[in-house]
Amino acid sequence: MKALVYDGTETLNYRDMPDPIPEAGEHLVRVETVGICGSDMHAYHGTDERRPAPLILGHEAAGVIVGGARDGERVTVNPLVVDPSCRFVQSGRENLSPGRQLLSMPPREGAFAQFIRVPGENMVTVPNDVSFEHAALAEPLAVSWHAAKLGLAVLRDGNARRALVLGGGAIGVAAALCLKAQGLEDVTIIELNDARRAYLESKLDCQVTTAPDGQYGIVMDAVGYDATRAISTDVAEPGGVIVHIGLGAGAGGLDIRRMTLQETTFIGSYCYTKQDFRETAAALFDGRLGALDWTEARSLEDGAQAFRDLDEARVAAPKIILHPWS
Amino acid sequence: MKALVYDGTETLNYRDMPDPIPEAGEHLVRVETVGICGSDMHAYHGTDERRPAPLILGHEAAGVIVGGARDGERVTVNPLVVDPSCRFVQSGRENLSPGRQLLSMPPREGAFAQFIRVPGENMVTVPNDVSFEHAALAEPLAVSWHAAKLGLAVLRDGNARRALVLGGGAIGVAAALCLKAQGLEDVTIIELNDARRAYLESKLDCQVTTAPDGQYGIVMDAVGYDATRAISTDVAEPGGVIVHIGLGAGAGGLDIRRMTLQETTFIGSYCYTKQDFRETAAALFDGRLGALDWTEARSLEDGAQAFRDLDEARVAAPKIILHPWS
Repeated sequence: MKALVYDGTETLNYRDMPDPIPEAGEHLVRVETVGICGSDMHAYHGTDERRPAPLILGHEAAGVIVGGARDGERVTVNPLVVDPSCRFVQSGRENLSPGRQLLSMPPREGAFAQFIRVPGENMVTVPNDVSFEHAALAEPLAVSWHAAKLGLAVLRDGNARRALVLGGGAIGVAAALCLKAQGLEDVTIIELNDARRAYLESKLDCQVTTAPDGQYGIVMDAVGYDATRAISTDVAEPGGVIVHIGLGAGAGGLDIRRMTLQETTFIGSYCYTKQDFRETAAALFDGRLGALDWTEARSLEDGAQAFRDLDEARVAAPKIILHPWS
Repeated sequence: MKALVYDGTETLNYRDMPDPIPEAGEHLVRVETVGICGSDMHAYHGTDERRPAPLILGHEAAGVIVGGARDGERVTVNPLVVDPSCRFVQSGRENLSPGRQLLSMPPREGAFAQFIRVPGENMVTVPNDVSFEHAALAEPLAVSWHAAKLGLAVLRDGNARRALVLGGGAIGVAAALCLKAQGLEDVTIIELNDARRAYLESKLDCQVTTAPDGQYGIVMDAVGYDATRAISTDVAEPGGVIVHIGLGAGAGGLDIRRMTLQETTFIGSYCYTKQDFRETAAALFDGRLGALDWTEARSLEDGAQAFRDLDEARVAAPKIILHPWS
């Protein structure tokens, strides 16, 4: 098969790789679409020790099962693989399992390829009226669905149902959509890149701007740098909630004294549970997450160029979806 | 009346002050006991801008109402005074009200004095079989009762019901007692001062030690410095909870990347709600918070020396209770 292989820092090669061979309980999936994630970009830069070269990256896949009892089934892939005996898995928090595996982290190859092997329980059936382009968004949307749930679960009655999302990348956009789908209507996105902000304004039914306005009951930091954490503590109202999804860098920015006196709740959010992934897929399929027309399609063969364009902020769309067969 | 007046940095004078004159809705209270709080110590050092000299400090008071319809009633004092029209007050979170006042912060004088004026709604009746020494502990216990409630409310089923409390001062000791009273039995206190640790070991029914052992579902930071925050993120298990009560200093120590990947919930905790204060008083009165024999009694007249002794870590007991009439 053809695959886009991460062969070293900032080096991606579209080349031949052996077809994956499914193990017990797994299926072979013909990949129809696969999104590029910020974490793929961290790996590309050589800054993600969990993803050493050579490796096939990519974990936002949709496609068709090839062979076996489910041959021909259209699916979207939950890339998180866990041990069912783990106590976190047993309490429904698969994302916290210390032994978790993710497609695109060794020992598992990713989905920037024509085929991938996937455990049967990690696939959700996609209805015929949902495109593969949309189906590949289930994974990043699930990240934000989970984060929105965590935040809304602790948002108290006395607080303003008013949210600020920091960052208009896919996770930020998805966070805004998921908050709305979960019943919080007043959502503003902060995005500093002019081209992306204009793009989002044309696509989304929420305010997209460059600076906060007042205080918010809930702040979703989809960036994760000192500067965004400083904004988060500054604009979270008393008793408010900060959900920190971004894995940018650094450990500064939080105003701890203010967080203590104002009883800010700060929640780290990582990945999603299996239940969250299913809920997200259902919301995606029935239209609750909007038109999902904020992606750009490219061929997997041109994947290296897509990474360069993303790296140089030349892509207005918050998500590029690669197609391995066109 | 006599009062211990904060007249400037590290200067406390026991001197005559005018008797307070109750305003509408207030009562005059003869102060029988009043505890020294860490925040009094911050003010004493001139590092609390909310408490400028000259000022009567002290907000952990119990005593007897003098005059009026409630003459002779034994009471413990909730020092938090709020505006009933505030939206935070209306949602039962008086501690978050931006316009809140605290006895011992201007415009209100504190309780290191023979008398204090207190709004009627800020007093809880103390049963005859409860000593004033114990009744003065309602306030610091309420701080920790509130913090324990916040933490336990978000501790999830899959997490270990195992708590670490950082700091064996009154708030740390109270946090341990409140966690136990609220149903979490496995509590360890970290206290580095040898004399205080030995004292606590002789008084409390929980482990008091110098270093964490493994991981914990909930960590209560009753100190609030970079070093304790670093320990907190290090020993909080995946999905665990850190409750940050201390107002030590600094903004560092938290391992944000770890908190994100492990979904740590960090909650700032400040003061208490009116409901929490009443619950704490009830628990104190019916014995759920233990023997409360970890205090040291001194005369208010000798208050300045008590501050010096606390400042130089010469006091093994985590709380000094001052008596204005002996």
